[in-house]
Amino acid sequence: MATVRVLGIDPGLTRCGVGVVDVATDRSAVLVHVGVIRTNADIAIERRLAGIAAGIREVLDRHRPDVVAVERVFAQHNRNTVMGTAQASGIALMLAGERGLPAATHTPTEVKAAVTGYGSADKRQVQTMVARILRLDSLPQPADAADALALALCHAWRGAGHGATAP
Amino acid sequence: MATVRVLGIDPGLTRCGVGVVDVATDRSAVLVHVGVIRTNADIAIERRLAGIAAGIREVLDRHRPDVVAVERVFAQHNRNTVMGTAQASGIALMLAGERGLPAATHTPTEVKAAVTGYGSADKRQVQTMVARILRLDSLPQPADAADALALALCHAWRGAGHGATAP
Repeated sequence: MATVRVLGIDPGLTRCGVGVVDVATDRSAVLVHVGVIRTNADIAIERRLAGIAAGIREVLDRHRPDVVAVERVFAQHNRNTVMGTAQASGIALMLAGERGLPAATHTPTEVKAAVTGYGSADKRQVQTMVARILRLDSLPQPADAADALALALCHAWRGAGHGATAP
Repeated sequence: MATVRVLGIDPGLTRCGVGVVDVATDRSAVLVHVGVIRTNADIAIERRLAGIAAGIREVLDRHRPDVVAVERVFAQHNRNTVMGTAQASGIALMLAGERGLPAATHTPTEVKAAVTGYGSADKRQVQTMVARILRLDSLPQPADAADALALALCHAWRGAGHGATAP
């Protein structure tokens, strides 16, 4: 059965979630990698962003995804962190573009709906469903890591034209 | 006399201004390079961002600045373009960080005040003052290019502790 390998990225300056899954055409999915790239708020912004780029490049090199999905950032969200989140998302998209990989963005609502069937699901519900879908023994931690996996699943399922929320 | 070479970047997805100046300790400045990196709105965002990264890298490689100054992006600005601008600014800062170059951000008001003495100066005033400071025969075009040069001048002057708006 054909599978697609998706890298999901939940962008953030302090914690950037990265999750790689292989998703088959029957919607079944297998965990390949999950992690969080952390940067220290005490160091300069340019060094933090370079650290995020290095972490994403490492995942791209090691796991060679077919496509990259990045959470969409909205300007009206929390003003204090939105710029750092947008900057990290730009780096994630740029790194996909540099390698000739297609990239897509999905909103948090789309991601939650895809994996839980409910666009307003809380973090715990997302973690629980991601663990169930990927048959994990424990909840993916922290929430940013679960969100990255949920994003990757959402992308694969939506891309296949049969999102979880469709009848 | 000691000089500092500053790369100023006015981030943007459609037009990203880049300007390099050598600024001496007596505040005199010489134009090294000015240009605009353009990306086509018809192509995918990840490819546009990769194009901006490639353009900035080329300037870094060719002109080897000592420091990078990037215009600060605010979340409350034009909602339609602010995310693309923030993403481009993240890439600019990240590329500085990757090369171990210090980076700084300055607000448009700081930049206008530094080069014209007036924080609400219009684009034409900024272009005119940049041309005068750098002894150019014509106004730097387009405005994004002039803004990038103004940003570089602002950074050098503020960094030297005697900004144009100080008494």
